[in-house]
Order: sequence, then structure tokens, then C-alpha cells
Amino acid sequence: MNPNTTLIGIRGSRYRLDTPALVLDLPALQRNIARMAALAGRHGIGLRPHAKSHKSIEIARLQAQAGALGISCATLGEAEVMVEAGMPGVLITSPVVGANKLRRLIELGCKVSPGQLMVVADHPRNVEELAVLASTLGYRLPVLVDYHAGLHRTGVADAAAAVALAQQISGSDTLLLQGLQAYGGHLQHIHDQQQRAHAAANLCEEVKALVAAIEAAGMPLEIVTGVGTGTHAFDAAAGVFTEMQPGSYLFMDWDYLRALSDAAHPAPFETALFVQGMVVSVNAGEWVTVDAGLKSLATDSGTPEVAYGLQGASRYEFFGDEHGKLIVDAPHRPKLGDHIEFITSHCDPTVNLHGYYHVVDDDTLVDIWPIQARGRI
Amino acid sequence: MNPNTTLIGIRGSRYRLDTPALVLDLPALQRNIARMAALAGRHGIGLRPHAKSHKSIEIARLQAQAGALGISCATLGEAEVMVEAGMPGVLITSPVVGANKLRRLIELGCKVSPGQLMVVADHPRNVEELAVLASTLGYRLPVLVDYHAGLHRTGVADAAAAVALAQQISGSDTLLLQGLQAYGGHLQHIHDQQQRAHAAANLCEEVKALVAAIEAAGMPLEIVTGVGTGTHAFDAAAGVFTEMQPGSYLFMDWDYLRALSDAAHPAPFETALFVQGMVVSVNAGEWVTVDAGLKSLATDSGTPEVAYGLQGASRYEFFGDEHGKLIVDAPHRPKLGDHIEFITSHCDPTVNLHGYYHVVDDDTLVDIWPIQARGRI
Repeated sequence: MNPNTTLIGIRGSRYRLDTPALVLDLPALQRNIARMAALAGRHGIGLRPHAKSHKSIEIARLQAQAGALGISCATLGEAEVMVEAGMPGVLITSPVVGANKLRRLIELGCKVSPGQLMVVADHPRNVEELAVLASTLGYRLPVLVDYHAGLHRTGVADAAAAVALAQQISGSDTLLLQGLQAYGGHLQHIHDQQQRAHAAANLCEEVKALVAAIEAAGMPLEIVTGVGTGTHAFDAAAGVFTEMQPGSYLFMDWDYLRALSDAAHPAPFETALFVQGMVVSVNAGEWVTVDAGLKSLATDSGTPEVAYGLQGASRYEFFGDEHGKLIVDAPHRPKLGDHIEFITSHCDPTVNLHGYYHVVDDDTLVDIWPIQARGRI
Repeated sequence: MNPNTTLIGIRGSRYRLDTPALVLDLPALQRNIARMAALAGRHGIGLRPHAKSHKSIEIARLQAQAGALGISCATLGEAEVMVEAGMPGVLITSPVVGANKLRRLIELGCKVSPGQLMVVADHPRNVEELAVLASTLGYRLPVLVDYHAGLHRTGVADAAAAVALAQQISGSDTLLLQGLQAYGGHLQHIHDQQQRAHAAANLCEEVKALVAAIEAAGMPLEIVTGVGTGTHAFDAAAGVFTEMQPGSYLFMDWDYLRALSDAAHPAPFETALFVQGMVVSVNAGEWVTVDAGLKSLATDSGTPEVAYGLQGASRYEFFGDEHGKLIVDAPHRPKLGDHIEFITSHCDPTVNLHGYYHVVDDDTLVDIWPIQARGRI
């Protein structure tokens, strides 16, 4: 049992959590969900937010209540969690490859109504295997052609390959050509807004041409998906994508906070995710040691920054698996046992390190949500 | 259920795992355990290996069968898992701070025989709180003075503070002064063997003087602990420590492989831990994409390297949460669905990303072990 359970509902409990603890500011989360839903509504574009960020059934439900079409998943494991929870409209945004996973995919497809589970593909052999296995489903499995979008992580290599793969899918008795995916993951984190807008516009033009090429070959595309938190505002306005799959707007790590704000404008979403640590050693001269290290905070995009619990300037450095070094000017040095909250540099892998969201409203712990798809890599 | 369960015992199953999968080479693990136990035996030094690396009851039991005194734990959560599994001789190697954790510590102490749960401390207020709470135990809680060892992560600041804290512990009716801890974590990863030997020797001299100072004040120390995989050979021979707490020797990530080998000598332990991924996209010109990214491989100490499944030179780059970019010369480019195993740069946080060890003997999956203390941060 989570040792913080007894604190639920007690005023001031937020800063008495057993640490390290992942903290989710519920009102901020709800405002972020509402803002993205409103923006999508204004532009008449659909929203199928990405579960890879939150890995949580509770959060997926909040997004659905705000009008989301369904939920995007990076992995089959995430999709299994979402389907088991009854989430409709599940899209798996990476190709599902190999006999083991294809078998699991079809088993999952047997549990949903037709159209409620969709998958992307980028290779003729994969489509061939999908087509054979999908024959046991009793309905045509919806497949989206995955386009590289300049990232070349997954996706077909060019327009000709996209058209050919679309034809292969269309021509199958067991598959349904549902649409196109073009996710420009590398564009999302460009900090310069003009550069990011320009790159997003270029991709939109490319996708528009690609859709035209596929449709000109007699294959209409119901869904054109992609779009992350970084380019959402440009892409929603461009009218090329029919839906978006952002994830990080929920939480706003500091990398996205910087990318989406400038001197004149704050970011359109606010930070709702924190990692709370405690000061566990105070004997060093220049720093104190906190109990949040590289097993509770992602290391791939930089060091975390202090959000709450400390006055004055400070700098965090990773200090091993379980600890962080917090360098603070002497007048503001915290005491043994003080609780301090950090903003992570990268929300998705940070969430994946934790078992629970500690859901807070102001200074009160109001709920604890398990992170059901944690580690479903 | 782990989808690989059906493969247990089938010849050749190792390279057909549902990926990404953490793979543990059981014979290599057993050889590493036996080698460290033999070295400790030769030098007459005890071994209380560190569970923070493996977080596994099964591995702790193998270490105990090879003569370990017990198990070291970085966190109270790890200690709870080990105590629940019936492991004796549990030492918590970081101070346990704050009312919540101290309450859990005492609850845990109620479940073990006297002496089977020990904790370190580095601050008078923490010792004061421990002394009050330990009164409910019915035995004196063994406490070790934690010394900074040059790392200054946790630990008392100097010899005077060490003696004073030892006196405070000794003077308590509810605590037992059990010994001293001096863990030089920063020395373990020095790649130059001579520099590492020199640094270890310096720390040994410092610890020797510290033990003498505490014992001269009339307080004998039964345990003097510290020592990691990097300095184990020097420290075992030096005769200052009574026991060692290495962890990574079990697995040997590539950072430790390099540190412990040189042109003339291979490392005394062999790599037993791998992450298996699969090629999931092959459309890019210069690389293929595998399904092992920064949610399955630690990023803090560098990129992983290919161990099995690929001929020729290759280079891995992180390619997002779920993917890796594997740059390979054209003649050796792997095919869609090929399985490739990687050696991580840092074993401890990599293990913490996974739910299971896939235990293999040669090319056969022989067992699946849950990582019970995963995420017990």
C-alpha cells in the first residue's frame, strides 16, 4: 500500500508526503485539459491525446470527458491497459512488429468493437502479417500508413512508398485503410517559436501533398494524425491534420515551458507535475542532499529545477541513483527533513519511474492514482 | 502476465522474447557471485551485497547461499521487500529521515529478530528521533555512523562529528552502536586503475584513523562497511573494512567493464545483464530503429552498446522514449524483426526500468524473475 494513503484529505498534507513522490496538481491538470480541448474545438480538429505521457486510466478518462476522440498509445502494452479499462478509440502510434506482438494485438482486437483499436504500419511485410492474422477478427482492422515526417524513426521512406502501402492495406480483405500518421517528434522541442512554426508549416505542406497523392489514387483517408505539444497551435490552425496526439501539455516539463513561452507570452499550459523530495543530509558545506535522484527524475533532457519549498537561487545536480545535490546559498539553506518540489526536464520518462500520482489540490493530498501502464514498454 | 512465460524451457527461446526485455545470463551471474564470494573468503572480509543494483529476492537468495552476511539496501522500500522475503542481516545504507519513514522503519524493526535490521545515521536530530521511536522495539536498534568518505552525499562532516554521533548512539538506551559506514561512491567509477587504487588507499587510511578515534573513545565497532565494485579488490586486501557492499559486480555494465579491465587484464567479472530489443523499422537510409529507448535503458552514463545479434560496427543513439537508432554499415544491416541485445552503460537504473528478469542459460529462457523492489525509491 502507498504509505501516503492515510494523508488523503488532510489540510497541509501535500508537503508531508513520504518521499520521493510524484505530485500532480489537479486543478492545473484540469485547466490544461480544458485549454487544449477548447483550442481543438475552435479549430474543428479532433484530439486523441497520447497516453505515453501519463500512462494513467484516470487521466485518460478526464481527457475523454473533455471530448477526446480516444487515446493514442506508443506501445501495445499501453494499449492493453487502456482497452482493459474500457477506453474507446485506441490508436497504437508505433508499428507492431514480430509474431509475439502481432498475436497480442489480435487478441486485443477481439476484445473491442470494430474500429475501436487502430494501428500504424510502415512496412509491406508487417502489413502482410497483419492481414493474415486479422482474418480471425470478424471485422477489418483499421490501419494507418505511418510516414517518417522528417524524423525517420518509424514510417515509410517517401510518397511512393506511402501510396504503395496504402494500396496494400486497401487491397486486403481483412484490413481497413483508416488514414495517415506523420508525427514530427523532432519539431516539438525546437525552442525558437518562429523556427518551430516554420518547420511545422513545412511538414504540413508535405503531409497535404501526401494525402492528396493517396486520395488521388482513389483511397480516401478518414484520419490524418500526428502533432505534439510543441507544434499543436500551428498544426491545429493549418487544416491539414484531422486530429492531434499531444501528451506533454498535461504536465509541462521545463523543456516545454521554455519552448512554448517567450519574453512577451507565457506558455499556454502550466506545470502540473512535480517530484517531491526531502532533505536527508545537511552536513556538506555548499549543498544539502535530497532523496530524489536518477531513479525518480529523468536524466535525458537536463537536470530538474526547484519549484516549491525553497527561497533564493539553487541548482540541482544528480547525485547517484537515490539522491540529488541541491546547491543553495547559505541564508536560504533548507533544514533536515524539509520538503522540496522539483520540475522535471522531461515528463514522460519521469512519470514512468513512479508507481503513483499523488493528486493534490493546493496544499492538500486529495487522491492517489496508480500509474497503470508504467513500464508497459 | 509476462507474455514470455510460454517460452520458458524452449531451446532458442532467448532470441524470440517479446521485447524490450531485460535479460539475465544465469551462468554468468552465478560465476560473478562465486568469484566475489571467493575473493571475500580469501581476504577474510564479509560481504553484504547491495540490493539497489538488483532489487530482486531471487538474486539476494543466491548471494546468501554463496555466504553473504545479509543484504544492503539503499532505501527503506527495498528493505521492506527484503525483510518481507525473510532475508536476514538487512542494512539500510542511507539515513532514514522524517516522521513517516521513521515510523515505517520501526514497524519493519518489529518484524525481525534483534540485529537483523540495521540503519546508518549522520545527524544528531535523526539519532534523537530514532532513539525515541526505537523504545517500542523491545531491543536496541543497531545504528552505524555514516561518514562522508569524501563524497559528501550523506555522512558526518569530520572525525569530531563522527565521535560525537557515536557517543550519542552509545549513550542511548534504545540504540546500539554497531559500526561505521564510509562509502566512497565517487571512487568506484575512476577508470584509471592506479588512480582508483590510490584513492581507495587514501580513504582506507582515513577510515582507519576514524575507527581508531571512535574506539579510543571507548566505543568498539563491530562493523566497518563501505566498498563498491570499483574498489573491492583494493579494499578487501587493505584490512580496514570488515565487510563490503558491492552491487554492480553481478551485472557488469560497460562503464564498470572498462574501469575494471586494462590492456593486459580482463575484468574479474563478466557481463550478465542485457537489454533485448527488436528491429521495428528499416526504412531509413543509414540506420534501423529498435524498440528499446530511454524507457528501457538508463541514459545517465552514456549510450548502450551492442552485445549480440549484429555483425560489424554499430552505434546506438537514444531515439525517444520507446526507440533507439542503430547506425550500422550497409552489409550488416539487420532485418525487420531481428532481435539485438545491448549492454547498458549503467546497470542499476536500467534494472529499475523493468518489471522482470528474463533468466537465460545460453540460448534458452529458463525462468522469469519479478523485480520485486523495482521503483521502491
